[in-house]
Amino acid sequence: MNQVKIYDTTLRDGSQGEGISYSVTDKVRIAQELDMLGVHFIEGGWPGSNPKDMEFFLRMSKVKLVNSKLAAFSMTRRLNMKAKEDPNIKALVKSQAEVITIVGKTWDLHVRDVLKTSREENINMIRDTVKFIVSEGLDVFYDAEHFFEAYTSNKEYALKTLIAAQDAGASALCLCDTNGGTLPQEISKIVGEVRKRVGVSLGIHCHNDAGVAIAGSLAAVLAGCDMVQGTINGIGERCGNADLIPIIANLQLKMGINCIKEEKLKELTHVSHYISEISNMKQRNEQPYVGQSSFAHKGGMHINAITKNPKTYEHIDPALVGNSRRILVSELAGKTGVLIRAKDLHLDLTRDTPETKKILKLVQKLEHRGYHFEAAEASFEILMKRALKKYKKFFELEGFRVVVERHLDKKITTEAIIKIKVRGKKEHTVSMGDGPVNALDNALRKALKEFYPNLSKMHLCDFKVRVLDEKAGTAARVRVLIQSQDEKDTWNTIGVSENIIEASWQALLDSVEYKLLKDIN
Amino acid sequence: MNQVKIYDTTLRDGSQGEGISYSVTDKVRIAQELDMLGVHFIEGGWPGSNPKDMEFFLRMSKVKLVNSKLAAFSMTRRLNMKAKEDPNIKALVKSQAEVITIVGKTWDLHVRDVLKTSREENINMIRDTVKFIVSEGLDVFYDAEHFFEAYTSNKEYALKTLIAAQDAGASALCLCDTNGGTLPQEISKIVGEVRKRVGVSLGIHCHNDAGVAIAGSLAAVLAGCDMVQGTINGIGERCGNADLIPIIANLQLKMGINCIKEEKLKELTHVSHYISEISNMKQRNEQPYVGQSSFAHKGGMHINAITKNPKTYEHIDPALVGNSRRILVSELAGKTGVLIRAKDLHLDLTRDTPETKKILKLVQKLEHRGYHFEAAEASFEILMKRALKKYKKFFELEGFRVVVERHLDKKITTEAIIKIKVRGKKEHTVSMGDGPVNALDNALRKALKEFYPNLSKMHLCDFKVRVLDEKAGTAARVRVLIQSQDEKDTWNTIGVSENIIEASWQALLDSVEYKLLKDIN
Repeated sequence: MNQVKIYDTTLRDGSQGEGISYSVTDKVRIAQELDMLGVHFIEGGWPGSNPKDMEFFLRMSKVKLVNSKLAAFSMTRRLNMKAKEDPNIKALVKSQAEVITIVGKTWDLHVRDVLKTSREENINMIRDTVKFIVSEGLDVFYDAEHFFEAYTSNKEYALKTLIAAQDAGASALCLCDTNGGTLPQEISKIVGEVRKRVGVSLGIHCHNDAGVAIAGSLAAVLAGCDMVQGTINGIGERCGNADLIPIIANLQLKMGINCIKEEKLKELTHVSHYISEISNMKQRNEQPYVGQSSFAHKGGMHINAITKNPKTYEHIDPALVGNSRRILVSELAGKTGVLIRAKDLHLDLTRDTPETKKILKLVQKLEHRGYHFEAAEASFEILMKRALKKYKKFFELEGFRVVVERHLDKKITTEAIIKIKVRGKKEHTVSMGDGPVNALDNALRKALKEFYPNLSKMHLCDFKVRVLDEKAGTAARVRVLIQSQDEKDTWNTIGVSENIIEASWQALLDSVEYKLLKDIN
Repeated sequence: MNQVKIYDTTLRDGSQGEGISYSVTDKVRIAQELDMLGVHFIEGGWPGSNPKDMEFFLRMSKVKLVNSKLAAFSMTRRLNMKAKEDPNIKALVKSQAEVITIVGKTWDLHVRDVLKTSREENINMIRDTVKFIVSEGLDVFYDAEHFFEAYTSNKEYALKTLIAAQDAGASALCLCDTNGGTLPQEISKIVGEVRKRVGVSLGIHCHNDAGVAIAGSLAAVLAGCDMVQGTINGIGERCGNADLIPIIANLQLKMGINCIKEEKLKELTHVSHYISEISNMKQRNEQPYVGQSSFAHKGGMHINAITKNPKTYEHIDPALVGNSRRILVSELAGKTGVLIRAKDLHLDLTRDTPETKKILKLVQKLEHRGYHFEAAEASFEILMKRALKKYKKFFELEGFRVVVERHLDKKITTEAIIKIKVRGKKEHTVSMGDGPVNALDNALRKALKEFYPNLSKMHLCDFKVRVLDEKAGTAARVRVLIQSQDEKDTWNTIGVSENIIEASWQALLDSVEYKLLKDIN
């Protein structure tokens, strides 16, 4: 095998994941991103199951895909109904997708307990459905649901369902580990046996319930599958589907098997983050290849070795997948971490300067109180520059007051009042807002805009709140991370306090000061 | 192989994970939990590297472990120093651990670029260190760092380092995939070859940089390893270590290989959550076997099948690992989900009652606005009971006001004022707090305590804030989840708003009302 096809089902099986809910526009954006990456097939949804999926296919008929083919999904025809009369099947044809994927029952237990029909009738349902769609001139893939349990329970019946689909004209058969409980050694054995019994293309579709979906997919490829189904970031029901990101990277970088264009590998980090973002999910820091921590080094000994030779603690060059190395500033990283950051910032700091020790001590004290400079490089830069007296004060805060009021008519109002001194002049402003932090943000900008007009060019683009000692209930300490951007850069700042307003204020201040600092340099 | 030993390194390698920082007390609590679970070895730390780890071993010398042996970790002696004079090695002996694990260089690239010494001297370092510790009457395990790259780069040298450790008296050799980039098929091949060349016990230590650490560990066991190193929840540097939770479950439930006592398997979910909690990390919902979503069903078709036969969409009985099935209430779950929850609550609701449709519509509307009842069963119960008019109003809110003020001396004060009507009587209370939500909580309790004294028995034990549309910056919508408990139960409630105070207030109100509702039933 030196070529594997990638079949992405983020938009169909992935959308079953807990907490995921895509709008039609979200789905179109994701499809365009997948096309840019160059997966071979994009399963867009189940047009017969809900109007949203049907609308997606109609919208997509006006979008030109460059690299990928669109696939529509449905189950086999209903009991006692002709395929051409089943509304699900009619919706497939209407979807204008180039590939139609039909899922059918393979496991005798499902035929008996869920379909409640005979084994023969199930085979008829598969055959009729595939035959009808092929007769409409469409390419059909057949998904064999629960294939591995089915094969273990009744090998000959499981094979019969596959062969029925193949004989009816399906151009690919996909073996689905629907419950995700099959280990790679089993997958490998069974795929090897099936490969000998059928002639068309073979796919694999794993779920991660045993924590081995990625390895299971690779094992299937080694045993004879030439198509892998999965989702970006492994999103999906229960423990998720097989994560296509490390599957593509492993196949291409470690096993020498092509799946997407060589030059697109470095888009993997971007695609993973982009789809996390649209899915409104936190990107897992520790996600293989593309996570924020995937090439992050914390232990002092490791950082030391990495500076000597990156291969010592990195399995690949992070740039190959569009990721990059991060040296974490933390109590464990020690002086080397601080010095590397100082060098990045062109600050004159060596192992023996007294300020190095001072900064380390301060970082340790703040981390103890819940700060985490790992994720807030801008706040760390301000801290270093303050310690080195390379810091200019842009304004002085004298105080603020925030009032949130809920009235008898249930309406909520929020007002922030700020007193600051800028270049010797007192400013006293008031502003409303959607919430307390937004009101403070508005009031601060109002006070500063006359002095620093370029602040209008920056805006906050991400706002994260993490409760630190959750056990303390409403008196818990919170950490606020703010990400800001202007037309050129993106930067992260942090604030920690028992009071969420104070924590947000700290991060807000750092963010504004970083922008001002940046612009005078 | 029908018995595999589990070597846990959560406290040492796991603590290198980004964002993890254990106190000595945390470490002792985790060790006791691991002992209860019955792992064979608990690697507590590197006593020579920092005073905190040494203090941990001293504290542990007074703690009696029932099932596990404690291990202390260090690298081989320094260059040009006798083992017995190296402070790191002396600290190991002083730690009173029963097992000493020594890590050494195996890869010629590391010997040259990091140690900067000759290959012979590296072998001497391994031999001297192991020999000295064995001569102190201690059991020594040898960790071969970067074994797989080393073996690929220079097979005979890699084997020589192992044999040096074995000949010096090490009772186990552990093959470490330190950079985490080796695929299971490679691990399997290399372990098989090594197994033929050495006589003592063989261990495997995988990292998850290629997303296959669990499968790599299982492949190593199949090829001849009888010890698995890993961490609970897979915490660790970069992409983490091999996750022992699914490894134990897979070995024991799927491969018929014993590692912990049969009756302890059902503790896996608890241990995983407990250690997430102490590590101050969010438990991953989709974690195999033990996550909140591992046996959660959302798709209407799946829920339907599950009610017919659980085996249809569950790879194991969740109770085996101490987890349980969850039926998610969401737009996709449809009527069946609502009806199942209603049945759990003994509410009289059928597919055709008009209230069923009304509840579904309301849930869809609220979910559209960012509510997520999946994680807030108590709020969902209140919603259902309100819709069914089975709900009693305990008090009426007329309004509140929260004032957060930052003074010239940088001190922050927070005050909440509440107006409510309880049983026709007006209450007007004011209270300070650590932050706005805490102040509201205090003021509400003050107003209600005379009427509902049992509220003093409940407290909020978890408080989570999630920003929904992060791109909106400080004007973003936030979702607040509150977990509360009394002496008997734990319950979850939710609130959503652009205003974090309002969102928290909604969740707080539901939490208090749930407690009152519960107590009158």
